[in-house]
Amino acid sequence: MAGPPALTFLLLVLLLPAHQAIATAAGDAHGGPAAGGAAGRRHAPGLEEYGGGRIVDITHVPSDAAAGPLVRLKESMENGSDYNLSELRMPCHMGTHVDAPGHMIQAHFAACLDVDTLDLEVLNAEAMESLNIPRGVRRVLFRTLNTDRGLMWKQGGDMSFVGFTEDGAQWLVDNTDIKLVGIDYISVASFDHLITAHVAFLKNADIIPVEALKLDNINTGLYMLHCLPLRLVGSEGSPIRCILIK
Amino acid sequence: MAGPPALTFLLLVLLLPAHQAIATAAGDAHGGPAAGGAAGRRHAPGLEEYGGGRIVDITHVPSDAAAGPLVRLKESMENGSDYNLSELRMPCHMGTHVDAPGHMIQAHFAACLDVDTLDLEVLNAEAMESLNIPRGVRRVLFRTLNTDRGLMWKQGGDMSFVGFTEDGAQWLVDNTDIKLVGIDYISVASFDHLITAHVAFLKNADIIPVEALKLDNINTGLYMLHCLPLRLVGSEGSPIRCILIK
Repeated sequence: MAGPPALTFLLLVLLLPAHQAIATAAGDAHGGPAAGGAAGRRHAPGLEEYGGGRIVDITHVPSDAAAGPLVRLKESMENGSDYNLSELRMPCHMGTHVDAPGHMIQAHFAACLDVDTLDLEVLNAEAMESLNIPRGVRRVLFRTLNTDRGLMWKQGGDMSFVGFTEDGAQWLVDNTDIKLVGIDYISVASFDHLITAHVAFLKNADIIPVEALKLDNINTGLYMLHCLPLRLVGSEGSPIRCILIK
Repeated sequence: MAGPPALTFLLLVLLLPAHQAIATAAGDAHGGPAAGGAAGRRHAPGLEEYGGGRIVDITHVPSDAAAGPLVRLKESMENGSDYNLSELRMPCHMGTHVDAPGHMIQAHFAACLDVDTLDLEVLNAEAMESLNIPRGVRRVLFRTLNTDRGLMWKQGGDMSFVGFTEDGAQWLVDNTDIKLVGIDYISVASFDHLITAHVAFLKNADIIPVEALKLDNINTGLYMLHCLPLRLVGSEGSPIRCILIK
């Protein structure tokens, strides 16, 4: 469905004034509760800068208080080993992550459109966080009320998050050249349209949703964006590390 | 130990002619066999380019034929779920990865110098793959006989790989400004100096070894390097995705 409803929603995402919310309650198709929380010692809403402020980390630390630590020591120097060696175990959609086409489109999954097929050119180039989306813009990070409300910092998840409706997603697909859609909570789709809006994006195998970005204190503007997922052959998602370079 | 032996080794790493090897046999402190192998459908020694050749992926796919798949479906559309959802389980030093200071220095591990403390500025800037290391160069990727011999493509690991000796590592620490040391096999340290050369690097918490890079068909030169590890709080290592931009 295209037309006015889609446009209305899209403008909501783009122009949403502070203290205005969309949608309802409970549930998470993304395998873990809201990432972030207390896990990262240094992980806080303030800007996490490197290189004298030129580089900003926009990645949330993956964590899951309920499931316990994601990383555990398999070899420990404290127990006599020559080295420390950790093992990682986590859902692929925890913390800042990327969805591959196979996440909700079975035909794409069967066709092996996994995270290792994602276009690194789309994931590493100029990005825009903007109130206008002129034709030709290929990457947009949506900083929404999710950031203003600090949803990524809440324990347990909050399903009243801002995300795309089905028709909003379809409008974006039909009327823009965007190939990378970044969002500041765990799902690019609103809770009421969790499956349908994902499907609207992912059926186009060249559109890459990047979810759970840390956009606290990031101003609207043009940035160099670098997003690098793991090469997880066969996986329909991956944790991803993302930075902005001014 | 500094002086001539160190310099000799360093030149070996830098100038090593084809078909010349260093070191001995068997064993792996890095948690898994040689990454790569048959796991990646598209993963092959040829250049993996994006953006019309401007971006080159220098990341090896993590895999472990012995341990089975790293990723498994927890929710499957084929079995009636609305989405596919994968879980990841892997040693943190498999495939292309980064060592944090705590990997072999217990005091650094106790001080929480984990992968989430690594300097993203060091990991994202101009890199050099060069026969000379002038003062001021901060990042070098060493393409060695490991690549020429195709070691990363061999099953089971080959401990006759080229890596730093203890004194070679110490020489580099003492005589260059290098903060990022990239190498084209699973360890920055040669097998005979597996612990000692790691320690020579890692005791300086600002030096970052990046291991198991895919440098097949990469020519000597200057590149923009982007390496993004996961934000694994508490972990002394992480899988990392690395690209060169021309």
